Amino acid sequence: MEQRVMREILTRVRKDELSIEDALLLVKEEPFTDLGYAKIDNHRQLRQGVCEVIYGAGKTSEQILGIAGKMKENGVRTILITRMDADKADYVEQNGGFDPYLYDPVSRVGIIGELPKPDGIGTIVIASGGTSDMAVAEEAALTAQALGNEVIRLYDVGVSGLHRLLSHMDEIMSARAIVAVAGMEGALASVIGGLADCPVIAVPTSVGYGANFGGLSALLSMLNSCASGVSVVNIDNGFGAGYQASMINHINGR
Amino acid sequence: MEQRVMREILTRVRKDELSIEDALLLVKEEPFTDLGYAKIDNHRQLRQGVCEVIYGAGKTSEQILGIAGKMKENGVRTILITRMDADKADYVEQNGGFDPYLYDPVSRVGIIGELPKPDGIGTIVIASGGTSDMAVAEEAALTAQALGNEVIRLYDVGVSGLHRLLSHMDEIMSARAIVAVAGMEGALASVIGGLADCPVIAVPTSVGYGANFGGLSALLSMLNSCASGVSVVNIDNGFGAGYQASMINHINGR
Amino acid sequence: MEQRVMREILTRVRKDELSIEDALLLVKEEPFTDLGYAKIDNHRQLRQGVCEVIYGAGKTSEQILGIAGKMKENGVRTILITRMDADKADYVEQNGGFDPYLYDPVSRVGIIGELPKPDGIGTIVIASGGTSDMAVAEEAALTAQALGNEVIRLYDVGVSGLHRLLSHMDEIMSARAIVAVAGMEGALASVIGGLADCPVIAVPTSVGYGANFGGLSALLSMLNSCASGVSVVNIDNGFGAGYQASMINHINGR
Amino acid sequence: MEQRVMREILTRVRKDELSIEDALLLVKEEPFTDLGYAKIDNHRQLRQGVCEVIYGAGKTSEQILGIAGKMKENGVRTILITRMDADKADYVEQNGGFDPYLYDPVSRVGIIGELPKPDGIGTIVIASGGTSDMAVAEEAALTAQALGNEVIRLYDVGVSGLHRLLSHMDEIMSARAIVAVAGMEGALASVIGGLADCPVIAVPTSVGYGANFGGLSALLSMLNSCASGVSVVNIDNGFGAGYQASMINHINGR
Amino acid sequence: MEQRVMREILTRVRKDELSIEDALLLVKEEPFTDLGYAKIDNHRQLRQGVCEVIYGAGKTSEQILGIAGKMKENGVRTILITRMDADKADYVEQNGGFDPYLYDPVSRVGIIGELPKPDGIGTIVIASGGTSDMAVAEEAALTAQALGNEVIRLYDVGVSGLHRLLSHMDEIMSARAIVAVAGMEGALASVIGGLADCPVIAVPTSVGYGANFGGLSALLSMLNSCASGVSVVNIDNGFGAGYQASMINHINGR
Amino acid sequence: MEQRVMREILTRVRKDELSIEDALLLVKEEPFTDLGYAKIDNHRQLRQGVCEVIYGAGKTSEQILGIAGKMKENGVRTILITRMDADKADYVEQNGGFDPYLYDPVSRVGIIGELPKPDGIGTIVIASGGTSDMAVAEEAALTAQALGNEVIRLYDVGVSGLHRLLSHMDEIMSARAIVAVAGMEGALASVIGGLADCPVIAVPTSVGYGANFGGLSALLSMLNSCASGVSVVNIDNGFGAGYQASMINHINGR
Amino acid sequence: MEQRVMREILTRVRKDELSIEDALLLVKEEPFTDLGYAKIDNHRQLRQGVCEVIYGAGKTSEQILGIAGKMKENGVRTILITRMDADKADYVEQNGGFDPYLYDPVSRVGIIGELPKPDGIGTIVIASGGTSDMAVAEEAALTAQALGNEVIRLYDVGVSGLHRLLSHMDEIMSARAIVAVAGMEGALASVIGGLADCPVIAVPTSVGYGANFGGLSALLSMLNSCASGVSVVNIDNGFGAGYQASMINHINGR
Amino acid sequence: MEQRVMREILTRVRKDELSIEDALLLVKEEPFTDLGYAKIDNHRQLRQGVCEVIYGAGKTSEQILGIAGKMKENGVRTILITRMDADKADYVEQNGGFDPYLYDPVSRVGIIGELPKPDGIGTIVIASGGTSDMAVAEEAALTAQALGNEVIRLYDVGVSGLHRLLSHMDEIMSARAIVAVAGMEGALASVIGGLADCPVIAVPTSVGYGANFGGLSALLSMLNSCASGVSVVNIDNGFGAGYQASMINHINGR
Repeated sequence: MEQRVMREILTRVRKDELSIEDALLLVKEEPFTDLGYAKIDNHRQLRQGVCEVIYGAGKTSEQILGIAGKMKENGVRTILITRMDADKADYVEQNGGFDPYLYDPVSRVGIIGELPKPDGIGTIVIASGGTSDMAVAEEAALTAQALGNEVIRLYDVGVSGLHRLLSHMDEIMSARAIVAVAGMEGALASVIGGLADCPVIAVPTSVGYGANFGGLSALLSMLNSCASGVSVVNIDNGFGAGYQASMINHINGR
Repeated sequence: MEQRVMREILTRVRKDELSIEDALLLVKEEPFTDLGYAKIDNHRQLRQGVCEVIYGAGKTSEQILGIAGKMKENGVRTILITRMDADKADYVEQNGGFDPYLYDPVSRVGIIGELPKPDGIGTIVIASGGTSDMAVAEEAALTAQALGNEVIRLYDVGVSGLHRLLSHMDEIMSARAIVAVAGMEGALASVIGGLADCPVIAVPTSVGYGANFGGLSALLSMLNSCASGVSVVNIDNGFGAGYQASMINHINGR
Repeated sequence: MEQRVMREILTRVRKDELSIEDALLLVKEEPFTDLGYAKIDNHRQLRQGVCEVIYGAGKTSEQILGIAGKMKENGVRTILITRMDADKADYVEQNGGFDPYLYDPVSRVGIIGELPKPDGIGTIVIASGGTSDMAVAEEAALTAQALGNEVIRLYDVGVSGLHRLLSHMDEIMSARAIVAVAGMEGALASVIGGLADCPVIAVPTSVGYGANFGGLSALLSMLNSCASGVSVVNIDNGFGAGYQASMINHINGR
Repeated sequence: MEQRVMREILTRVRKDELSIEDALLLVKEEPFTDLGYAKIDNHRQLRQGVCEVIYGAGKTSEQILGIAGKMKENGVRTILITRMDADKADYVEQNGGFDPYLYDPVSRVGIIGELPKPDGIGTIVIASGGTSDMAVAEEAALTAQALGNEVIRLYDVGVSGLHRLLSHMDEIMSARAIVAVAGMEGALASVIGGLADCPVIAVPTSVGYGANFGGLSALLSMLNSCASGVSVVNIDNGFGAGYQASMINHINGR
Repeated sequence: MEQRVMREILTRVRKDELSIEDALLLVKEEPFTDLGYAKIDNHRQLRQGVCEVIYGAGKTSEQILGIAGKMKENGVRTILITRMDADKADYVEQNGGFDPYLYDPVSRVGIIGELPKPDGIGTIVIASGGTSDMAVAEEAALTAQALGNEVIRLYDVGVSGLHRLLSHMDEIMSARAIVAVAGMEGALASVIGGLADCPVIAVPTSVGYGANFGGLSALLSMLNSCASGVSVVNIDNGFGAGYQASMINHINGR
Repeated sequence: MEQRVMREILTRVRKDELSIEDALLLVKEEPFTDLGYAKIDNHRQLRQGVCEVIYGAGKTSEQILGIAGKMKENGVRTILITRMDADKADYVEQNGGFDPYLYDPVSRVGIIGELPKPDGIGTIVIASGGTSDMAVAEEAALTAQALGNEVIRLYDVGVSGLHRLLSHMDEIMSARAIVAVAGMEGALASVIGGLADCPVIAVPTSVGYGANFGGLSALLSMLNSCASGVSVVNIDNGFGAGYQASMINHINGR
Repeated sequence: MEQRVMREILTRVRKDELSIEDALLLVKEEPFTDLGYAKIDNHRQLRQGVCEVIYGAGKTSEQILGIAGKMKENGVRTILITRMDADKADYVEQNGGFDPYLYDPVSRVGIIGELPKPDGIGTIVIASGGTSDMAVAEEAALTAQALGNEVIRLYDVGVSGLHRLLSHMDEIMSARAIVAVAGMEGALASVIGGLADCPVIAVPTSVGYGANFGGLSALLSMLNSCASGVSVVNIDNGFGAGYQASMINHINGR
Repeated sequence: MEQRVMREILTRVRKDELSIEDALLLVKEEPFTDLGYAKIDNHRQLRQGVCEVIYGAGKTSEQILGIAGKMKENGVRTILITRMDADKADYVEQNGGFDPYLYDPVSRVGIIGELPKPDGIGTIVIASGGTSDMAVAEEAALTAQALGNEVIRLYDVGVSGLHRLLSHMDEIMSARAIVAVAGMEGALASVIGGLADCPVIAVPTSVGYGANFGGLSALLSMLNSCASGVSVVNIDNGFGAGYQASMINHINGR
């Protein structure tokens, strides 16, 4: 058994978050279940919160269902499934018997179980450049919500009409973390980075055409941001940005 | 003889800008002088204004001097030399006997002859993102001045400190053409493009490091600008932007 | 309220282009309407002419219709919709009740409302290299027409048969702005740039195969043009070129 | 005057951090000083802490000194100068009369003024893959220290010898933010991301040769990290990572 | 006749692996059969083992069947067909009359004839990062089996959950060759390379999105591995890795 | 009228290849017919032989038919149509009434009219690496035949089985020009270039996967060939290679 | 001994170009001399003409001299050394005792021995875009001369001043092969390809800056040429173009 | 202590390769010594043979000496230092007092201590394309020798003169592993891969110019090799290839 898992178990016992019986069961349990096509981490929930994530791309409907089912068995409260096409979502809905079950076709995100109550320090702002960036922005927003954050959405605030963004200065100034989602030239990240006081996580999107080269233009733009306090995740990776924003929003104070 | 040159000559004669004797001489003259390493276009001045340009990169000091000398003989009033290293500039100064002669080591631009009086419609604004973009911005500014334009310089107005740019809205709103010079993420072009009513010519610079890949980040950013009315020239091509801005500023009204 | 919008309103009142009552309404009005997926700029028309543009790619039929409807309500006279697939165009036609309504399947451009009368200074030439570049060239041409310009089309004048281009020297020499559209090696921009006296806006197209890498060859070729006075927009961005050409063609004289 | 600056001033007055007299002076003061080559933001310190940063690359010795001098005048306590070559550092040392003054030739970082006492929530771990990544790692470490953080350095813990990293699990598990610095294949970020509970900011370095293409290999590797909670800054951008880590480490608790 | 083929024939005769009559037939035989679209190498089996390979991509069903049929005629015992789509596999199954015949839809590998008994020195480990890499991993595994190797599969052992990999140290330490299959950041190869004592052949996969650029991220990552003893094959080339691993596992001892 | 066309007409009259009446008609004729979507060059045949070419990609069935019909009217004997999909070929066949009419679905080449008798100096060898390169190789072969050349096809002679190539040394040594068609690593061009005495025109193909990046690997390989006498055309450009090989094979002797 | 070498020897004996004694010596001779760092091909001259080539880049002065000396011993009449820096050229001149010996510092080409008399069919035109392309153009020109061709140089005839090129139509129309050398956008190749009747070999040069990416822009431009009959060699490879042009110019008639 | 190290110690004790006293010392010893800039692995020798490697690039002379000294203390018999510039080599020689000490300026490899006696199964062939590839080839060869292998060097056997390679078929056919080193088009790897029966490790070199893009052409060529049994290491990574070849050559038989 991994040392950190052991420590986590002991900590939870001391805090009375875990009964001694459950602790003993956990210690005996195998660290992961091997489904052949995937290894389900039985201990991960102990370490990383009450929400588990399944990356849906490249998995069959059956594999997604199999993994989700095993997680439910393990007692996971909320399961977030990203990049799940509509037909797979249908399959999971019809064969999983999960309740509640939510699927958002724009972001292709599925959520099994209740959304947790927000328990982060403050709010996370998700800002996006244009209508077409909404799929990625929603992936970030739903991820952050599934991980227990209050989210404010500022969509279609691209830099070509600066006053749309500037009219939301209050939300920007009071956020604990901002996710800036933009395709094309990706300038939104730099402009927000220059205005805000909190960490900005930039998500380049593949929205655009021609010399955007599948999101490369926005990616390079964001990596070269002249504003301090901006970091970047992969093209279209709304999940990753929402996840890190949640981490920042849950940092323990002193 | 090219048809357009003939037409130009006749037009100038009719407007009394050219005497009949000079016109006859021009007609007889060879269209270009062959120096071996370069062909000097004897008629170009007729067509494209009173200023000739020598692209200094890849030419030896002797070649630059030879071309400039021949142009002077042809009666060119102002000669602009771009991308001329300091040692070549020294050589030209010491051996050319040109007066006046100006050399700006920041932009590596040399100017032989007087700067013409501004005769464009309005002003050209040259805006740049940071201190390091100044070399390119000055190439654009001096080019525009050498071609007869009034120039307003707005330097170090990058988007990470938006208020520096916004405090110059008056200059931006009253320009006839704007040259936006920026390296790194090149967001300046989109922001200005969203604010201004006139054509914006964007110049990506190679300023930056790492994933700017020699100016690629700013170039792609500018090509993918979400603002309408922005076009782009080559990386570090201050000259090209100043040249086109001047063309726009000299368009004949009805 | 933005300062420039205020100034515009006042200017129009003074010129009697706007009644005092309408001005008061405008001042009270919210600067933009938030449709959730898009923010419609209620004041933009004041600033940027009588034609509004919807970028159709990445928007659903419903979103396009929603935005166009709101614009019509705002009193926009001409609405240009770019990159709209045929099925979306059908949807808008059948559900919008717009009259007149035009859709060009080659360029995928839709136009709601009358084309305005040309009010630019001169003519805009749209030149293209080959038959396959026509979709992009037409996007540029229709854009320029929708923005109030007289347009001359010179199609299939690629440099591999130079006499086809040279037989149109008159149109080239008398244009106020030229849009040069070409795929493959994109040499058309340089050749026209060397012949013309006015600004040339080059549009690389993705036409070609193999080492054209989706338009990269023409893009790099045009950015590196040895002719002065050439600037470049994104690959296949006929709209952007037509838009900037229109700006140039509408510059106020002294 | 910007609204946020006004609010900051008022807030500080209420907290008794600013006397009324000083507040009045600030309100009267110009928002930035224009040195020609740079605009010094007179209010930035109010907003973003007691440390100001000068990006030394592309600036002359004189410019660096000029900016630093003006900042000192403005009362900035700590000035961090990044990417300053040794000869420029000598110039600043000999002509600036700053005391204390520190220059680290490995990271090319200069610091004017005292390092502040750590006032962040916890510790920041700076981990690096190999000896050659030390320059970038130190830029991150010194930045974090100059911004008031306690820093733990774990150098030469690359993944090819996993036990070197695993022997530091305690430091990793107790960090508030981790900066993972690696060149070559950049796998360190993913491995740490999989082990840690806090946000990981990955810095690809240009260390390597051949198909690392100046840091591209590590950059792409880090952007595609299969671990959640990893975001990325530009190649060799130790400063940016240290800056964002500091932001995270200073987030206010509830 | 090629010298090496002659030598091989003689060697086999001496070892009594080939009768004199068969040897004479071979010598008379044409070195390859020309099917028009392909040249079947009649001697290759002599030189490179009892298994022949057909690369199915870019070949029609008829061509695959034609080549396989000719090989069967030549007496090839096992035929491995890679990258064969399901419909082509159906065609071959229904029209070929091969028995046994196996087709794996995940890896798109077909095998005609019996799998040979393992005759390599030890075991080959095929390790893969995630569920989505299974197609490539299985191509490697089936290739190695078809070429006479004992194979151990370790799937879903990506570096973001290091303990999954570390729990298989025994298999890793006792392998003769390891094939490490991973997409996204491809860090698996470096981590295994640092742990193992035997040659590691890394296979980057195209699994991922955005800045993985079709497998480029994993490819560059693996080429720049900081671990010694790692070499790389083409993106998604499970076959190539399985083939070379088999070569290594069949090296003659002293 | 272009000078070179005039000279060609006169030359043909002197050689009795053209009657005086036909010459006069030609002189009066417009140099090209404008079909709106294309300009048909009425004089090209005079200059460049009896075969005209239509590049089918990006043209509609109607456009192809329109151009071909006009060419037939102009008296063109052989019309080569490249990159024409099967459905367009059907359309042309059914609506054109051309006889003879040939369509090869592998190379997607159509030929209207008789293939001319070979009138070149010697033979052209078309060599290709693998079965999948056949489409491109056939485009080259049919182009060369349509332009009047004797062609020898050497297919599936890739360098991984060198004896297949070496068994055809006679054809290679006696060719006037060789077209080397290969995908993947494109080594065939270098090997043939090292063996042959005549010009080798290399055609990289997009055959392959992963790090071939759509033919980039073969393209770069061929451009960097260590053999002298090798030049390269665009990826998959069988037509271009066949065309230039024909030019070389038709060069007039002294 | 290679078959083709044997055939060449016999052919030369039959043509009385080789005495029987010399033929016997050649047959006995080793096919190449191994200098350790290089293998000198003793028979190559038989096969490929009277001129041998040494690629100077990456070789030391001593190695160049050693190879040249051995070639001289073998009786090579003309030795062409490409890409030889001036200091190596000095070394070879001072230590080689070769007479005549020529070195051109612009193209960095050295020639040992007499230039042969032109024995090709016609003339080779070397055309270049600008003054800075001269180094590459001269490498092509000197190579062609060293291989026995009459060469016409047309320098500084770039497409931005089309009349400079059009005034040389006679030379272009009467060439047997044209080498088109251009950097920047490389349009020269397409324009010449559209005008000429003979094969055009295009040489992209690295002349330019910014988005020319070391010659990539001209390379892609030339590969995508819309003109038929254009093939391309490596960036800056004047030698390769001159070599192939010579091959074409020496093709035997019927 | 790592489990594998413990097992190794016990195995060596059982085989009498290690005294019990030394074993006890090892167990007590810290697993690595931290020099600040590097962590020296005290146990690595136990696991990976008698030769340790220092990657010299990016390390100062002092750091190299410090690491080498510590290794010597640890009892390492042979130390291989790669990519060490001549001046650093001088420093190490003069200050290290190592005897014997060897430095090869071509490959920039230093070796401290005796070269071990070859103890591999067979021979390793190092083949290279041209004279300029020698630096990389020698790095591979010296690495293989330092790791206890018999090495055969075949230099300057590039594919443009195939007979040079074919005359060494015996060495190629009898090798246990082949390292194929080539720049430019890198075809050597495919040709050798097609000829040989043993694993081929391909090393692309950065030798070349223009479109070789720093070795990219050879790298892609080798990754796309149509020959089976070829794997690839980083550009110029002679060390990596020599290392893996040695691993293969030391595989234990049954």
